[in-house]
Amino acid sequence: MSRRLRLVVEYDGTDFSGWQRQPTERTVQGVLEDAIRAMTGETVFVRGAGRTDAGVHADGQVCSLDLEADNIPTHGILRGLNSILPADVALIEVAEAAPDFDARFSARGKVYRYTVWAHLVRSPRRARDAWHVRHPVDVEAIRAAAPLLVGEHDFRAFRAADCDRRTTRRIVRRLDVDRQGALLTLEVEATAFLKNMVRILVGTLVDVGRGRIGPEAIPHMLETGDRAAGGMTAPAHGLTLLRVIY
Amino acid sequence: MSRRLRLVVEYDGTDFSGWQRQPTERTVQGVLEDAIRAMTGETVFVRGAGRTDAGVHADGQVCSLDLEADNIPTHGILRGLNSILPADVALIEVAEAAPDFDARFSARGKVYRYTVWAHLVRSPRRARDAWHVRHPVDVEAIRAAAPLLVGEHDFRAFRAADCDRRTTRRIVRRLDVDRQGALLTLEVEATAFLKNMVRILVGTLVDVGRGRIGPEAIPHMLETGDRAAGGMTAPAHGLTLLRVIY
Repeated sequence: MSRRLRLVVEYDGTDFSGWQRQPTERTVQGVLEDAIRAMTGETVFVRGAGRTDAGVHADGQVCSLDLEADNIPTHGILRGLNSILPADVALIEVAEAAPDFDARFSARGKVYRYTVWAHLVRSPRRARDAWHVRHPVDVEAIRAAAPLLVGEHDFRAFRAADCDRRTTRRIVRRLDVDRQGALLTLEVEATAFLKNMVRILVGTLVDVGRGRIGPEAIPHMLETGDRAAGGMTAPAHGLTLLRVIY
Repeated sequence: MSRRLRLVVEYDGTDFSGWQRQPTERTVQGVLEDAIRAMTGETVFVRGAGRTDAGVHADGQVCSLDLEADNIPTHGILRGLNSILPADVALIEVAEAAPDFDARFSARGKVYRYTVWAHLVRSPRRARDAWHVRHPVDVEAIRAAAPLLVGEHDFRAFRAADCDRRTTRRIVRRLDVDRQGALLTLEVEATAFLKNMVRILVGTLVDVGRGRIGPEAIPHMLETGDRAAGGMTAPAHGLTLLRVIY
């Protein structure tokens, strides 16, 4: 009789080829599964709430797994795995979970943060976690347009071409825009996200802020599904999975 | 007739062997001088306000240099060098300076920030720029002890064994302690600093916060010069040169 565990994981995504295990690439799931095997001898499947892309970071990715070993307390798993895991990933919580807890399918929402460094000059200290936009960005225009994306909409214009989800209606609960000097932060909470949805939202809002498209592009995209009316897909390294809501 | 320039430089110190040029190591001064030679053909000496150690970061290092080329405007130097420089260093300002401006000897003060991640579990996202202290730290004890270090004192107990400065009296203008969750930030402004002075101040204050030494150790160190009464030298990667005052 195995036990189900719930892990909260933080990582710097720079040197990972994303979350999902791949045969030859270094991935977060792969590194976690390898560390668990090194510690317990067990080959487990670690299910992540969000399969983050290459370069995407996490402050609070959540995952679930089953472990046979019933003699290791959760704090022993936390300490033991953190001593094995490389510097760019760590467990920040380990807890026993109900047998039916599934990090991905039990999730009721997720919160992502996207960071933009809006300045003529790039920032070496934010090179890993902020998208450098060297053009002037009107934050008030972004703040005015953001509410157009909040609520229940068909977000099919805001997904990657290879996104295979059948339903494209999602509820964006909030989309907060904050500015501290050159640092522009967008925080989005939704029931669930389509592939690249946050990055296309951000790319489109930044284009509104640069005056390349008008805010009316957003209702147009939501109504017609016209991806081409939006902005570019913002690069992965500005994105962080902040937390998962259950 | 050459012109003197004043540069403000930002860098992530992780992959540098410090500021000062060395024959075989990658240093900030070396990378800057190489980029200037690549752009202008001139072999220059770039004088930094602070010769930061390996792993130390800068948000606002200042340097001075003389350039023969008088046909490149400052914004052209900024853009040109930033396109050559690697991702972990950038110029954030370039300005013409008075002929007697010397980044090091004209400085009237410097501000450093030290960041501590005080939490049982390490933080992968702060691994490059915060010192992980896994023991409980009493921030109020640190806040109460910090003013003991402010003012004019003989800081000979707060310097590296190989520090060769003749005078060891310095004026610490302020030492601010801030806490946001697990992130503890100490900001120190002084007329000038001895080698490793900030790192020994921080190591000592953290030991006060951990209860390993009492706050009376600080006046004792200032009066007797007894380095051994203090804490360890906090690691370099938590330190950032924020700005230089002229």
